Amino acid sequence: MRTTVIGLGLIGGSMAIDLRKAGVATALTGVELNPENAARAVDLGLVDEVSSLEDAVSNAELIITAIPVNAIRSVLLKVLDLIGDNTIVVDTGSTKSQICKAIEKHPRRAQFIAAHPIAGTENSGPDAAFSGLFRNKTNIICEQEKSSAKALKLAAQIFETLGLRTIFMDPVEHDKHVAYVSHLSHVSAFLLGQTVLDIEQDEKNIFNLAGSGFASTVRLAKSSPDMWAPIFEQNAEYLSQALLEYIMHLQRFQYHLMKRDTKELHRIMTRANQIRKTLDGIELKQKPTVIEK
Amino acid sequence: MRTTVIGLGLIGGSMAIDLRKAGVATALTGVELNPENAARAVDLGLVDEVSSLEDAVSNAELIITAIPVNAIRSVLLKVLDLIGDNTIVVDTGSTKSQICKAIEKHPRRAQFIAAHPIAGTENSGPDAAFSGLFRNKTNIICEQEKSSAKALKLAAQIFETLGLRTIFMDPVEHDKHVAYVSHLSHVSAFLLGQTVLDIEQDEKNIFNLAGSGFASTVRLAKSSPDMWAPIFEQNAEYLSQALLEYIMHLQRFQYHLMKRDTKELHRIMTRANQIRKTLDGIELKQKPTVIEK
Repeated sequence: MRTTVIGLGLIGGSMAIDLRKAGVATALTGVELNPENAARAVDLGLVDEVSSLEDAVSNAELIITAIPVNAIRSVLLKVLDLIGDNTIVVDTGSTKSQICKAIEKHPRRAQFIAAHPIAGTENSGPDAAFSGLFRNKTNIICEQEKSSAKALKLAAQIFETLGLRTIFMDPVEHDKHVAYVSHLSHVSAFLLGQTVLDIEQDEKNIFNLAGSGFASTVRLAKSSPDMWAPIFEQNAEYLSQALLEYIMHLQRFQYHLMKRDTKELHRIMTRANQIRKTLDGIELKQKPTVIEK
Repeated sequence: MRTTVIGLGLIGGSMAIDLRKAGVATALTGVELNPENAARAVDLGLVDEVSSLEDAVSNAELIITAIPVNAIRSVLLKVLDLIGDNTIVVDTGSTKSQICKAIEKHPRRAQFIAAHPIAGTENSGPDAAFSGLFRNKTNIICEQEKSSAKALKLAAQIFETLGLRTIFMDPVEHDKHVAYVSHLSHVSAFLLGQTVLDIEQDEKNIFNLAGSGFASTVRLAKSSPDMWAPIFEQNAEYLSQALLEYIMHLQRFQYHLMKRDTKELHRIMTRANQIRKTLDGIELKQKPTVIEK
């Protein structure tokens, strides 16, 4: 299948690798605004060539968009304007309400799949792409009733090839849930990193004193601001709500801490321990069956 | 060397395994209040036998305390009262100011080493113990000037055997730094877990939507409240200060988020990205050279 990937970073690049490997994508064209990343993606063999949006779209059977969410709206409208009857377009962005709304009335809406494969690392760019990124991960499709049977069938084939398990969700529900389960943990990591950097003028102290626990908790602070700032902007309402609840919990904890109410601290932590079951499940489901680089 | 380990959990158990393996501990006696853990520790071979504090201390050349920090003060005073001239006592607790103050005037002070090996996992109890836990980790010794040359020499041998790299620090400085670099990340994880559990009545949603990033950020929420509540209590002043700064950063972020000041969000995240260098260093130093179970 002639496939075009718009955005050759971690997500787009990793999809390209595995779709080619499975024989689903036979010819791969990339669209990438950053000329260095474009050249690198060709060097790495993620795509066969890089071309302009117009050229890359005109002839493709499958188009995947994997770009920062602030750019999706305009790119997607342009792409839908350009495609013919037989092209399917799959978006992979981390927010879904604004995207779905933007293309709601487009005559090509049925050829579009609003997806969000929940996978990633703290690294970005074509060099971050790897085979197996999506294996055993969850994929969300929003407003599947607005996509044609043909589009859904092709999308199902692609997501299965990548090893994704698809669930369906309303875009507003999607944005609300990911605010808590994904976006909030990114913000908490960024600001935990910031707090520690602020106090420890000498980074050698952090290096000496930090254990694997700190490294794990702060890992997401390495994530790309170019990718995350637009996600936070698009999901500002729900993320703000999640942040305020998180801050409220922290303040309550600090209050009990200052009152030396250790019993209450113990009670709070015991409740939080309930997350163990869920985390153990996540670790289990995400143990990839095979990893190939 | 006849060795007594008081507290047969993750820390005490892991020390026992590696000190025996290296031939440093020839006879190992445990002291453990929890009878199930005591029996389990003997079953696992962490120690040869479990006995009362009095019996276990009277004959030991080396005594290691690895118990919740709220219990250390009274146990340590009792241990120092009981030992003879040739016994060295090493504490491994995560707070150091109160402990150092409590035994400051004890006639056996010179036979004591106030240490804190910065190592651990979110698991606890004798079953959590494993060989190699301390390898390539940092160990802090406080008030080394109050320990005898003989005690310091023996401690150096033990910490080297375990693979720890020792640095020296004032106990107040120690408590302040670990509040930011270790204790704060535990609180942030506990309450992030709590926030998400609160909103997601159906834990299946968390399971479906959470990626490896969430799992990594929240991992420490699995930690033992029995161990952490006393640590937080003993380090309440510094931890509270760290928490207030963290909360301030979160509030500022939420303010810019609601103002849709995405440039400022981007700037904050770009600053936090500086932690990458330190984290990469931590991951590097913590890659164990050998892992044996």
